[in-house]
Amino acid sequence: MSTPTPEPTTTPAPAGIAPAAASGHAPGPAPVVGALAEEALLEVIQDSLAPIGRDAHWPAGTVPPGDDAAVVPAPGGAVAVSTDAMGEGTDFLALWPAGVRTRGHDVGWKAAAQNLSDINAMGGTASALVTALVLPSHTPVAWVAALGRGMAVALPALGAPGCRAAGGDLGSGDRVQVTVTVLGDPPPTGALRRRPDPAVRERLCREGADLVHAQAGLHPRAADPSGPGWAAAGLALLLTPRQVLERRWAALPAERRPGPRELARAVRAQLRPRPPLPLGPAAAAAGGVVALMDVSDGLGRDGHRIARACGDGALEPWVDEAWLARATTGLARVAALAEVQPEHLALGGGEDYGLLGVLPHGAPLPDGFRRIGRLVPAGERPAGHEPLPERGWDHFGAEGR
Amino acid sequence: MSTPTPEPTTTPAPAGIAPAAASGHAPGPAPVVGALAEEALLEVIQDSLAPIGRDAHWPAGTVPPGDDAAVVPAPGGAVAVSTDAMGEGTDFLALWPAGVRTRGHDVGWKAAAQNLSDINAMGGTASALVTALVLPSHTPVAWVAALGRGMAVALPALGAPGCRAAGGDLGSGDRVQVTVTVLGDPPPTGALRRRPDPAVRERLCREGADLVHAQAGLHPRAADPSGPGWAAAGLALLLTPRQVLERRWAALPAERRPGPRELARAVRAQLRPRPPLPLGPAAAAAGGVVALMDVSDGLGRDGHRIARACGDGALEPWVDEAWLARATTGLARVAALAEVQPEHLALGGGEDYGLLGVLPHGAPLPDGFRRIGRLVPAGERPAGHEPLPERGWDHFGAEGR
Repeated sequence: MSTPTPEPTTTPAPAGIAPAAASGHAPGPAPVVGALAEEALLEVIQDSLAPIGRDAHWPAGTVPPGDDAAVVPAPGGAVAVSTDAMGEGTDFLALWPAGVRTRGHDVGWKAAAQNLSDINAMGGTASALVTALVLPSHTPVAWVAALGRGMAVALPALGAPGCRAAGGDLGSGDRVQVTVTVLGDPPPTGALRRRPDPAVRERLCREGADLVHAQAGLHPRAADPSGPGWAAAGLALLLTPRQVLERRWAALPAERRPGPRELARAVRAQLRPRPPLPLGPAAAAAGGVVALMDVSDGLGRDGHRIARACGDGALEPWVDEAWLARATTGLARVAALAEVQPEHLALGGGEDYGLLGVLPHGAPLPDGFRRIGRLVPAGERPAGHEPLPERGWDHFGAEGR
Repeated sequence: MSTPTPEPTTTPAPAGIAPAAASGHAPGPAPVVGALAEEALLEVIQDSLAPIGRDAHWPAGTVPPGDDAAVVPAPGGAVAVSTDAMGEGTDFLALWPAGVRTRGHDVGWKAAAQNLSDINAMGGTASALVTALVLPSHTPVAWVAALGRGMAVALPALGAPGCRAAGGDLGSGDRVQVTVTVLGDPPPTGALRRRPDPAVRERLCREGADLVHAQAGLHPRAADPSGPGWAAAGLALLLTPRQVLERRWAALPAERRPGPRELARAVRAQLRPRPPLPLGPAAAAAGGVVALMDVSDGLGRDGHRIARACGDGALEPWVDEAWLARATTGLARVAALAEVQPEHLALGGGEDYGLLGVLPHGAPLPDGFRRIGRLVPAGERPAGHEPLPERGWDHFGAEGR
């Protein structure tokens, strides 16, 4: 009995409250969430849910938790589902040190985009989303309306015109918290998972595989598909005080200074990401790709995740040096202003929401994808490649290694 | 331009950040969320989402937002979906003034229960839930594990043994925030909505209707189904400092003092509600009930909601005096200790998650339901009834009228 309440024996009344007060979880020296890596905490949660996570609950054609989305049975078929929370103070700041204010439009757009990305990464097509909104009472009503419009604009703009807003929940709290859950139709050929079937895994381990990547142009008017790292560059810039940015910019040689378009592109990539929505279902329909996920925690971390899922430890991810050189060249000027290594942005930066796929080595590329590396048996050293460092974003830890 | 940043004309660099900074929503005298009633704010949000809420998105057999759950098209059928957020500090306190600590088990149970209730209120059967968890880094890991176990225990205990935990999202924040989204199979006969078809509404307006209610026993060992108000009684007790409760208890005449079982029952009703899960699908299968919702915001508020949905303003809800007398008698002792009117608890108290249904006047009662009132044309005064006061819970306002 750990609650600081008098014992019923000393004060017999009102004893009925006591039973609910019994608790073994008072604050104390017990392990806390902040001391665990995210994956360790996820394991604790999975274990606690084990009684309702039985295999019998996940018949053929469904996908249990652990992928970008789960696929659950529904009358006459199955439905993909994924949820993501965005909180003020952790996922965005109302006012960034760079002087940028996060608009309701940005939050609505991003909350929709990151959820649509999860369905895209299963090869599915989003059908509906619900939103649980927690708002401080001082939130301007216009900000909330802009949030709704941001979602409404994002869905067709990103390529999900058939996705419905299916309602939600409204509550009050200290900070804005937006939790979106999206439903989707899995592809008719079956969801694209991170972990292929055993026969496919065996083939990949024997013959090796290509790592392929797809990303939408970050700007609606930009025709060129871009490498990853721009959202992280935007985050680094937004987190730098405006005066510091101005001082740094003035100190850079003219040819290393990012132009206004590059800066806007980085900030936009962070505040309004553009997952390449048609490409997930297209890859599923085309066949070939044997594993798929979206890159939300950085290419390094997610690349190692998909390597483990495909190879059970027997495959190691390597990145193509020529591709990496192109990706980092594009980032060089914004990286210089952010004072971050371009390679760290490209390989460690999250929230770009591109697609990372695994293709049997040498198989034809699906539309919109580029080869960016290899999965090879441990010990092999593919020419023109370097090991992919396992860095990325951990929600309860620090960024990077 | 409302951001406190230097104009690009005075400092040309780094101007690229400026476009994203443009915002019309800086803090100021603009209307804020706290100044609006919840339903007015919902209307703002609905309006902002209008572009993606088109009627074409909601074919026959689906249910748009505005009900307990939406029913969205899925391959081969449709799926019900609902989301609810619970936050520390607003929906529960880590340590209540009464000295009770909210356990992870309680939070997991309640987060699951209130979502299962929404599917039950559509006549559906829950198939899966996903959870977005926001945790402060100082949260004990054991508390998080207890939360998972609370969900895992609640699902079969409440009558949803087929509901799967389908994963979720993990993030950090200042306070615990648990957002659960539940999916469900709609009943084969079609979802039970708050608003029946026009022909049924016309009949109800002509002939009047009965208000019917169902609630599970609040204690696993209690055989008697209970009236509403117990969860609100528990909330009132939990919010009262322990010393005040003790002083009040000592001052009450012996026959008006609640016993330990009554107190535990009230606290348990608040912390671990029990929606009567089998009764929603059973009512759908039996037919008869023409409108159904769960009582989450109090019988008064929700009774007026269902009256408006069924009668478009032509029907007024009246409560049966004999039923109300029985419901308030049961609550009398806990109400005395909480210093709240029993009638205010029974009619204004939320979070009991009973079912409130509408039945054509005199039609046979479905299993588990009781008649608790009438819907009658404005101006009529049914014998033995009193007008149902429109009181209840508003997330952005005060409780009561």
